[in-house]
Amino acid sequence: MYKVKVTVTLRKTILDPQGKTVEHSLHSLGYTGISGTRIGKYIEFFIEADSEDKVKLTADEACKKLLSNPVMEDYTFIIEKV
Amino acid sequence: MYKVKVTVTLRKTILDPQGKTVEHSLHSLGYTGISGTRIGKYIEFFIEADSEDKVKLTADEACKKLLSNPVMEDYTFIIEKV
Repeated sequence: MYKVKVTVTLRKTILDPQGKTVEHSLHSLGYTGISGTRIGKYIEFFIEADSEDKVKLTADEACKKLLSNPVMEDYTFIIEKV
Repeated sequence: MYKVKVTVTLRKTILDPQGKTVEHSLHSLGYTGISGTRIGKYIEFFIEADSEDKVKLTADEACKKLLSNPVMEDYTFIIEKV
């Protein structure tokens, strides 16, 4: 059994108004040293598979097909044996 | 300058219907080995500070006050020097 932790973020070149709003709020709370705030999605799941390579393949396909929009978003994932 | 990567997830005891929906979709696509899917938020930002300890303190406060709902959500973050 493996645990996969996926993060999906907007591509660097795409504006992130949600991130800007959060950043403004952080500044209002006094955290003025904060910049470059960006918001994304986090998805975690377990995969039952024989090898880490198979998990990698499955996770990559799932990210491409369902979890991210490849036109606008980038994804990364890490795999942990559990 | 430090980069902070925050993930906010629903507490384990709280149902995650969005996660369930994604899991059903993954099963429909043929990825039947997947279970325990949960969805959360991912937030990244940069902090200008003197030391990693200060960054840790600021990030922790920001998570508690703004980025997460401590009643329903857990948060974790990692700090990278950039």
